[in-house]
Amino acid sequence: MTTRSWWGWGNVEDAVTPEERRALVERVRAVLPDADLTFHEPPDPATLDLPSSRIQPSEIYSTDPVDRLAHARGQAYRDVTRNLAGDIGPLPDAVARPRTEQDVVDVLDWCGSNDVAVIPFGGGTSVVGGVEPRDLDRVVTMDLQHLDQVLEVDPASRAARIQAGVLGPSLEAQLKPHGLTLRHFPQSFEFSTLGGWLATRAGGHYATLYTHVDDLTESLRVVTPQGISESRRLPGSGAGPSPDRLFLGSEGTLGVITEAWMRLQEPPVHRAGASVRFASWERAVEATRLIAQSGLHPANCRLLDPAEAFLNAGSPSSVLVLAFESADHPVDAKLARALELCGDGEVVEGAAQQWRKSFLRMPYQRDAMAQHAMITETFETACTWDRFAELHAAVTEAATKALREVCGIGIVTCRFTHVYPDGPAPYYGIYAPGRWGSLTAQWDEIKAAVSEALIASGGTITHHHAVGRDHMPWYTRQRPDVFGAALSGAKAALDPQGLLNPGVLTTRPT
Amino acid sequence: MTTRSWWGWGNVEDAVTPEERRALVERVRAVLPDADLTFHEPPDPATLDLPSSRIQPSEIYSTDPVDRLAHARGQAYRDVTRNLAGDIGPLPDAVARPRTEQDVVDVLDWCGSNDVAVIPFGGGTSVVGGVEPRDLDRVVTMDLQHLDQVLEVDPASRAARIQAGVLGPSLEAQLKPHGLTLRHFPQSFEFSTLGGWLATRAGGHYATLYTHVDDLTESLRVVTPQGISESRRLPGSGAGPSPDRLFLGSEGTLGVITEAWMRLQEPPVHRAGASVRFASWERAVEATRLIAQSGLHPANCRLLDPAEAFLNAGSPSSVLVLAFESADHPVDAKLARALELCGDGEVVEGAAQQWRKSFLRMPYQRDAMAQHAMITETFETACTWDRFAELHAAVTEAATKALREVCGIGIVTCRFTHVYPDGPAPYYGIYAPGRWGSLTAQWDEIKAAVSEALIASGGTITHHHAVGRDHMPWYTRQRPDVFGAALSGAKAALDPQGLLNPGVLTTRPT
Repeated sequence: MTTRSWWGWGNVEDAVTPEERRALVERVRAVLPDADLTFHEPPDPATLDLPSSRIQPSEIYSTDPVDRLAHARGQAYRDVTRNLAGDIGPLPDAVARPRTEQDVVDVLDWCGSNDVAVIPFGGGTSVVGGVEPRDLDRVVTMDLQHLDQVLEVDPASRAARIQAGVLGPSLEAQLKPHGLTLRHFPQSFEFSTLGGWLATRAGGHYATLYTHVDDLTESLRVVTPQGISESRRLPGSGAGPSPDRLFLGSEGTLGVITEAWMRLQEPPVHRAGASVRFASWERAVEATRLIAQSGLHPANCRLLDPAEAFLNAGSPSSVLVLAFESADHPVDAKLARALELCGDGEVVEGAAQQWRKSFLRMPYQRDAMAQHAMITETFETACTWDRFAELHAAVTEAATKALREVCGIGIVTCRFTHVYPDGPAPYYGIYAPGRWGSLTAQWDEIKAAVSEALIASGGTITHHHAVGRDHMPWYTRQRPDVFGAALSGAKAALDPQGLLNPGVLTTRPT
Repeated sequence: MTTRSWWGWGNVEDAVTPEERRALVERVRAVLPDADLTFHEPPDPATLDLPSSRIQPSEIYSTDPVDRLAHARGQAYRDVTRNLAGDIGPLPDAVARPRTEQDVVDVLDWCGSNDVAVIPFGGGTSVVGGVEPRDLDRVVTMDLQHLDQVLEVDPASRAARIQAGVLGPSLEAQLKPHGLTLRHFPQSFEFSTLGGWLATRAGGHYATLYTHVDDLTESLRVVTPQGISESRRLPGSGAGPSPDRLFLGSEGTLGVITEAWMRLQEPPVHRAGASVRFASWERAVEATRLIAQSGLHPANCRLLDPAEAFLNAGSPSSVLVLAFESADHPVDAKLARALELCGDGEVVEGAAQQWRKSFLRMPYQRDAMAQHAMITETFETACTWDRFAELHAAVTEAATKALREVCGIGIVTCRFTHVYPDGPAPYYGIYAPGRWGSLTAQWDEIKAAVSEALIASGGTITHHHAVGRDHMPWYTRQRPDVFGAALSGAKAALDPQGLLNPGVLTTRPT
């Protein structure tokens, strides 16, 4: 049995060990000898002055304060720092845990009749304020954890009908006896749900081709205040705009996804991988572009800049981690060709393994370091290749300038999480010494600066972290206004009372 | 110089030759000795009683009757048979030919001020009544033929900004000096436009992976009555529901697509292909499924049933036409593996070449045979693999029964145009002797019967022919009602007067 942390990432039992913590602190101290790395314990929730519930619902609703506290925020750095500081904002008035789809309908009905907002909640790993009841009157958070079953498997089409509340590991465990896998492994895999992935267009395992969960989606079933929408299971269709593509990325604002038919894979049996070190970042980017445009479709094609590689893969050079996989045929020739495209890049050992190990520990380490007043957070984007050099320079400059102003010093790292024929999805890391008591405000200032740079340079405010409430100021600038009007029109049709996740994607109708 | 046919497919100069016609008629007579194959000339448009225009627009509008006649219908069999019979329905009151995007804005403004409907028109090759001014009061058809330029090429990202009115061949000719190609080759390639492909989610060259033009789209620029929507050029994004996916497949009902950034390819230099004959249709379908699920991604993977193969590829067995291509690396190993997956299928020569030749002549031959009162038309769908056998049996039975009742006799053929890991896109052909004077009604009866079977069997009413007016009765059954309400909400927001292509996808607001 494990216990979810109320204030930070994952399971209490999996948090960093004292030894791991000591090593992290030592590593930071080596770089930042003057930083105040005093350790801070999280507050005891029992000592916090938690607001009481303003509603009186039925038995599938919990109004327990600590339960509500654990559903009040996601897993962004700013969520963790506010929790650590005992800075408790609004809580949902109740947590509803539907056991059936009819319960979902009933919760929406009850909330509609009582003018109570509804925030759909999967694993609660939003890093953009997607599940936070900010600036709302009365709110029910609908936790779908009991809708966690694989209901049906179609081996011929390699697809399964799956309830939206299932967590990654349980989903894979239920598919395994059928010899099938979804192979959608976001960093949050252990603590996020299928419905959350679908609602936020999550990025997954594949660095190319099937980059978002969108591509693995065959059909969706969505409960809205105006009824249930269920699309046909179709491998492809040209019958009007795709119904699924409207709900994918709708972040709980148009309805509650309860089920999906997902496209599955057989587990790979053929694999080939290598890590390649480059003499310069520019050469590394160019090789990555060639591979992205080659049609080789590596499953992994993760480029680490020297700082990222130094911190997480043991090498102070630009390193490209490549991997090919197939359930059907050998992939060695693909790797060989990709290595040819790397030109004078040099194959190195061990980087991929070390990267993978670091990758899964990162969220725990981020939280541990937040306890030492370190600012450790990420942001991400995507842009076309022709714009990348300029965007990267502008973002790096904006981040460095903000770090200097806010923290005095800091490190900016970059990696590509996904690559496309027409551009990369760069992912940035920030490491800086913060000031205990001001961490949230400090991060918010840095985040605003880099978001401005992203939007000004032609990037997207998010490639796979979603919009939530935190990205709204930049999302509304990025999104065509006319499309915004269309989306509001669709929302007004499905959710005329504006009950569903208000403040996200569209503004509440007045 | 070539002349577009006013009544049927393509260029007058490319119509079937007398010799080709004789051969076709002889072939039909061999199978249907009793059919009345009398030849019928199309009427002279000058002798038709064409309704006069009801509007008085400015100089970019043509009110010439024959020009309006040539914009009154698409290229479905029922369009051709009505034209041949001199059965002229409503014409647009004028044909507007904007020369700039501002002209597009002005036409929408003028039509809005004068309560005149607008039908956007690309190449006019709709086979679903998508451009027909049916049951409307006053209508301007907006022909985008002058917006035909490739405006900008980004070689690093392999993308180009292209005006929507460009025809396939001109698009490729303008890209060629840059060493790039869109490689979107629908059967209508020569006479259809980029904007038409985007508005209808056209199916293209690739049998797997990039099956629809959707996948090649980087961003869209759309003029709506509420302003211009331009999405960012992004290789991928997770910022809310995709703006482009709402306009892709909107069939001119939400706005007029004026430009798009499209993802391009380098032309392939490595190719490998083979045709494989199978002992049974079931074995052929199974092999095709395995290839579709292998991750080999053939560019062509077209399965012909024995009747289709007999008519168009010279072999009376199920034949799978396979082709691999790459601009980067050899593809022989992929073909070899695909052939392994074909089990005891037998490689045959010549089928692919003959198929390709037939493919391009089909529309011309269909029209030639319509002049001899033959009913020759196609319909298409997609479904998951687990449902295919049942769907195929139901559709074949419905078609055969309808042909018996309507025509006494007839042939039903099937091919797969595109295949996905989770299902095929079957494409059916109908060949039957009709009755001159009743061809349209006869076809409509057959079409209704097969459409009922498709929808009842879990298929889509269209994989890549779009919805238009002809598919509306089945589209509204296939589409989730709740999604229909969302789409109507989006349309009400962008086109509150309901000016744009009324009768398609959504019903006019009352």
